[in-house]
Amino acid sequence: MKAEWIAVDWGASRLRVWAMQGEDVIAERVSDNELGNLNQQGFELALLELVEDWIGEAPVNAIVCGMLGAGLDWAKAPYNTVPASPLAQSLVKLQSTDPRLQIYGVPGLGQDRPADVMHREETLIAGFLSQNENWDGVICLPGPQTKWVHISANEVVSFQTFMTGEIFDFLSSTSELRHSIGAGWDKTAFFDAMDETLSRPETFAAKLFSIRAQDLLEVQGGEMARARLSGLLVGVELAAARPYWLGQQIAMISADSLMSVYAQALERQGAPVVRHDEKAMTIAGLIQAKKHLASPTHTVH
Amino acid sequence: MKAEWIAVDWGASRLRVWAMQGEDVIAERVSDNELGNLNQQGFELALLELVEDWIGEAPVNAIVCGMLGAGLDWAKAPYNTVPASPLAQSLVKLQSTDPRLQIYGVPGLGQDRPADVMHREETLIAGFLSQNENWDGVICLPGPQTKWVHISANEVVSFQTFMTGEIFDFLSSTSELRHSIGAGWDKTAFFDAMDETLSRPETFAAKLFSIRAQDLLEVQGGEMARARLSGLLVGVELAAARPYWLGQQIAMISADSLMSVYAQALERQGAPVVRHDEKAMTIAGLIQAKKHLASPTHTVH
Repeated sequence: MKAEWIAVDWGASRLRVWAMQGEDVIAERVSDNELGNLNQQGFELALLELVEDWIGEAPVNAIVCGMLGAGLDWAKAPYNTVPASPLAQSLVKLQSTDPRLQIYGVPGLGQDRPADVMHREETLIAGFLSQNENWDGVICLPGPQTKWVHISANEVVSFQTFMTGEIFDFLSSTSELRHSIGAGWDKTAFFDAMDETLSRPETFAAKLFSIRAQDLLEVQGGEMARARLSGLLVGVELAAARPYWLGQQIAMISADSLMSVYAQALERQGAPVVRHDEKAMTIAGLIQAKKHLASPTHTVH
Repeated sequence: MKAEWIAVDWGASRLRVWAMQGEDVIAERVSDNELGNLNQQGFELALLELVEDWIGEAPVNAIVCGMLGAGLDWAKAPYNTVPASPLAQSLVKLQSTDPRLQIYGVPGLGQDRPADVMHREETLIAGFLSQNENWDGVICLPGPQTKWVHISANEVVSFQTFMTGEIFDFLSSTSELRHSIGAGWDKTAFFDAMDETLSRPETFAAKLFSIRAQDLLEVQGGEMARARLSGLLVGVELAAARPYWLGQQIAMISADSLMSVYAQALERQGAPVVRHDEKAMTIAGLIQAKKHLASPTHTVH
């Protein structure tokens, strides 16, 4: 079975590929190797290993979203500055050694003030908009780095990245708090903590260590501690992201378990969200990106 | 040369011992092994290895401050609740196998609301107060977990712990920001960032990722990024710790390089600080603690 073209989602820790026939997925494969620091040859080898039996003798196009723009010299693509359509720019042709593989990358989006970048989410957003034409509102993409994206007239108007997930992982598994964080989830503790920092975000820094202290003073269990830490962090994020969710129509795209945490938090604020499947949006976005192949492309060396 | 008694500073990553003759230090040794998770035998062995030739056939007292209260079951000591003198409680007798070594621990301090604990700083504070009788003001102890301690009438009235140092280490060396953090220090960038989050702490969460984005958008170098990250974090801490430094007399005790960062930050806010040597305060505090040996002690099993 040969692919007409190949859709590629290149994350820092996972490479996902789909064999495509027009707009239909005919096969899927995933590799979980460390992929954030690959050089050009390493990336091509990792990709070929996954897709080799999908390609025949004729060259096949692979459309890649993700790590382009993450600072890798060989896969640098100029950011398109918002406000802009999520796929405003031409695709970037990446070098490949094997002539059977023509690799094209989707450039990311940049924002001058406040400084921000995305590279991968633009593709998911394009996928979402292809299925929800003329949709206005805010797309929230929860993950280690959650992004809030304001959409109007099929363009990304502005966006904001929060490192909440990455900081939660550190605090709960590596910092001194780890001794006090248990499994499980106390929903009331989550909401209480969230309410505290959402209404008084300036108290956030003073509250973290109390999670450890309450354990040592024997007034709090591990499942409360986990929920409380998450609540303090999400509350601070929601306080700073208020213009993105207050009174807005919110679509959420994620495969991360964080999605339900964010959805619960927003629903408690009276901001209902509609959840969308990340994989479906990624494939839909790469299908949109492929249409840009007709346009002239830009080559990086 | 034999010690009359032994002063011990037991940190999570360093064991420091002093051979004492009355109030005079006659020798010092340091071990840099991982010491945070030692069991009773492990701790006694690590200690004996450092001090064995300081002790003769008669039993010698070792006075230990530090990891007591850090959650180790064999070295649990009840926290004394503030307001309280830093050494309000009897020392805790720790079990030892070798009859030549009598080990006594200094209990920590606890605070109910907001929940907080200290175990080690109480000794440094006692040392400071022994040299500055009837001193009223705030002692700031910068480190991975910075503590602000309000002192009045020779008692600890209240205190507050901030995890700023630990979070800076994570963000600058492990999180995605690490790719953008360089060596060096841009003082202007530090002050600018500190001013931003000190005046508007609620914007903190929204500003972290811009450090990465400014690098990818090629508007900021690595030394600016390091100073800016530090400034954002210190500004948020100072905003929440304002009651501890505004209009107060401030003494700072630390051996950490963070001390000068905090001192610069406070001086910019018109809050001058007097810096004190951590080692001298530790030894002075252990000398004070030893005086409690005359009182009845509490034994843990």
